[in-house]
Formats: sequence, C-alpha cells, structure tokens
Amino acid sequence: MIDCGEGTQVQLRRFRIRFTKINAVFISHLHGDHCFGLIGMISSFGMLGRTTTLHIYAPKELKLILDAQLKLFCTGLGFSVVFHSIDTTRHEIIYEDKSLTVTSIPLEHRIACSGFLFKEKPTLPHIRRDMIDFYKIPISQINNIKQGANWITEEGNIIPNNRLVTPANTPRCYAYCSDTRYIPQLYKIVKGANILYHEATYDKQQESKARLFYHSTAEQAAEVAAKAEVGKLLLGHYSARYEDENILLEEAKAVFPDSILASEGLVMDV
Amino acid sequence: MIDCGEGTQVQLRRFRIRFTKINAVFISHLHGDHCFGLIGMISSFGMLGRTTTLHIYAPKELKLILDAQLKLFCTGLGFSVVFHSIDTTRHEIIYEDKSLTVTSIPLEHRIACSGFLFKEKPTLPHIRRDMIDFYKIPISQINNIKQGANWITEEGNIIPNNRLVTPANTPRCYAYCSDTRYIPQLYKIVKGANILYHEATYDKQQESKARLFYHSTAEQAAEVAAKAEVGKLLLGHYSARYEDENILLEEAKAVFPDSILASEGLVMDV
Repeated sequence: MIDCGEGTQVQLRRFRIRFTKINAVFISHLHGDHCFGLIGMISSFGMLGRTTTLHIYAPKELKLILDAQLKLFCTGLGFSVVFHSIDTTRHEIIYEDKSLTVTSIPLEHRIACSGFLFKEKPTLPHIRRDMIDFYKIPISQINNIKQGANWITEEGNIIPNNRLVTPANTPRCYAYCSDTRYIPQLYKIVKGANILYHEATYDKQQESKARLFYHSTAEQAAEVAAKAEVGKLLLGHYSARYEDENILLEEAKAVFPDSILASEGLVMDV
Repeated sequence: MIDCGEGTQVQLRRFRIRFTKINAVFISHLHGDHCFGLIGMISSFGMLGRTTTLHIYAPKELKLILDAQLKLFCTGLGFSVVFHSIDTTRHEIIYEDKSLTVTSIPLEHRIACSGFLFKEKPTLPHIRRDMIDFYKIPISQINNIKQGANWITEEGNIIPNNRLVTPANTPRCYAYCSDTRYIPQLYKIVKGANILYHEATYDKQQESKARLFYHSTAEQAAEVAAKAEVGKLLLGHYSARYEDENILLEEAKAVFPDSILASEGLVMDV
C-alpha cells in the first residue's frame, strides 16, 4: 500500500480489498492526507485477529507518533509493526525480495517527501511445452534450460536454447511521485516505467502557485512522462478548485497522449 | 460534537454540517472509533482558515498524543486547541456557559470512559405581547416583568405577573451514554432527559457477552430509559453481527416504547 489517508480502511472495505493482502505500507510524507488512516487501519487489523507482521516505510518523524499511538490504542496487538525509516534525500533500495525491489525517489515538497519505484526483478524465459514434448526432455532438465542451457539429443544434435524457450516477460515497473514540485531530472529515475503516477495539482495557468506550494501542473507531470518514455501517465492529487479535472487531462495529453485521470477505486494492470 | 471517529470530517461534509459550528469536542473514551478522526478534523479546520479556539474534553491520556500530533502535523495552525481533562470516575460539571451545563457521567467500560449530560439552564418566561400592548407597558419594564414583577397601572391596579407572561420553556436535556456495561443506578443521573442515547451493542441472548466486553444489551438500555422516564431512547453502537438491527429495537420497545435506532445522518430535535 502506498500512503494511507484518513478513511483508508473504509475505502478498502468499499472496494472489497482483503486486509490480509497488505503486508507493507509506504508513506511518502507526513501530511495528513497521506498518513492519518494508518493507526485506524492497524487497529482494525488487530481486532480482526491479524498475526502477520506489518512493515511501515516512512520518514523517521512518524515513528515517535506511531509508537505512542500503538502504546495507547493497540495494547495486546496480535502482530508486530516494524518501522523502517526512509531517507527522503536519497534514491536507494528500501525493500527487496526475490521478485521485487522498491527504491525511494527524492521529491521536492514543503516537507521531507519520497516517491517510490516498484520494480520487478527479471524473470526466467518460458519453456516451450511443445519442444519439451517433441524432444522428450526430462523434467529434471527444465531448470537448466530456463537458465539458458542447450539440449543435446541422443543422436548428438544440439538444439539451441532459443528454440526451447520464449523470452521472459519484461520486468514491470510502477513509479509513484507525490507530492512534488516539477523536477526536471526526475525522468531519469522513472525511465521506462510501465505506469508513472505523478501528482497534477494545478493547470498550467497556476504554474507559479504550483511552484510556491511545491506542487506540479498536469503539463509538468506529462513532461516527466514524455522524457521518461513511460507506458502510461496516471494523474492525481487534483486541487479542489477543479470541478471537472478534464482540463488537467487535456493539458497532459497535449504533451503525453497516454495520460489517465486517477479516480477512487480505479484498477490498472501494470 | 460528541466523539470523533475516523472519517468524521468526511461525514460532516456529506451531511453539510458547517465546520464553524463546532467549538467543542467531547471524547468519551480512547478507543479508535471514538477519537481517530480528531487530528484530521483539526488539520482540515486549520487549512480552511479557522481562527476560533477549539476545546477538547477528553480522558487525560489523549493530551500527550494530541500534542505530539499537533506539533508534527499542524505547524502554523491559525487557532488554539485547548485541552480539558475529564475525570471519568466523577459526575461533575465539565463545561458551563450562560445557557448550558455539560456534566460527565461515569460509565463502566474496558477503559476509562465518560458519558455526557447536556442540560439547558432554566430560561425566563415569555412576555405576552398582547398584554404589554393593552396596558401600554414601556419596553424598559419588560425585563423586570420577565424576572417576575407585577405591573401597576396609572390607576393603581395591580396586574399580577402570571397574566403578563406565559411559562418559560422546560429546560432541555440530552444524555449520551456510550460505551458502557449496564449500570443499574445510571437512571438517577439521566433522569428526565428529553433524549437518552444509550449504547445497545447486543441483544439479550448475548447478555453474558455484553457483561464480559463491557457493553449493554438493547433491553438493558431500555431499562435505564424506563426508570429514568426519559422522552426518547436512542439506540446505537450495534455489533456488526446484526444485519438488521430491528431485533435490538423490538427488544428495547418491549420495555420502553419510545425507542429509536440511531443511523448515519439522523437528525433529532431535543
């Protein structure tokens, strides 16, 4: 989960997202709309009998508050809450497992703020079932072939690896950048992401306001997306002044056509 | 405002309640469903430019957390937040102004918990406009008459006060009791309230569970209401096990017919 504003647990129920799916929460910065829902969600997890550890990745100042809240509101919690401090000034790996890395993205907001880059690790190529059957390759050899081995038939013929496999899926990548001023060099970090979420608080007429309040315009978000050559740009964090956010969408599309407006409950495949 | 669970500010917007109407928040106890919405609401008040002081009445343990939250999340807040500790073991006045007193009601819950009794102060009787006109009583004398004075005409006739006024409105009273075990003596404190809100977490088949978890059954709530001879009983805080809370309503009505189920957005005149 990325960020956890007030009422997040209500939204999870509304969209029927299973609470047990959430094992880590990445908090970008300590403004209320990004973290006030955390204690309520943790508290509800506890009441529902959770036992699995929950990992929180956030700027270090949150730890003091969270510890005090856990002590006062969550006595007898049946699971551990493990806090991991993020250094919001550095672009570095903050989480890693066998299939995924998460790296921090230094952003420019009024307070310490980090974006997140979720990157799948490369996977092995796919075995061609038909070839395995045709050459009667035993199961014990499949892993070798996935790792790149050729196959030598009983007659001594060499079947090159690329006839036995189809290419691995391209590792997927999701980049989340909110809240932030326009950062001209940001595209380098989010280069090639399948989806880039970038805040788009204002339209371009409000560019000086965006700069003043450390937010971006939709056009600036699209400039990052275009330079980074991402798959899709997901816009969000609109100022309440826009009754119809299509003004932001149009502005972004003029620079980067594959732009989409984020909305409550939106589901996208990466 | 009484209690402030997560998402309260969303509900206020949904029901179009003006934020500026809220000058005091009374927190009964420190379970999340009664206080997790406080910091978010305060934070939003700040962003909307509030300048009026907000008073918080709550068990003292909340102060430490609230101070830390205000410091971290609400720098530059344009209004004061004044914290008032409640002694949840005492029935005493915790707020008073010229028209209202609020007293604490010691409840029996798993943690320190207080109900609240909102009681209007007696008001003056109403002047009879027709009599004022008939006897040509000058405006300067109206206040005396409201205070109980008779009127003496130029001819020296005494017009008794009760011909010049109609009785004052009966002072109104609202009692809020949640969360609590059944307290047999509670009726004495809430005696004659126009409306009694009393928690009704369970039905009577779950009475031993209610006792164990420091909650009440609907029947127990109705017993308090009946003994206290209140105007109406408002039931709430239902266990999630009830898809249809009418089982609780019927149980209460059997003991106290003027029972009502609380629901989101319900508005009642006291």
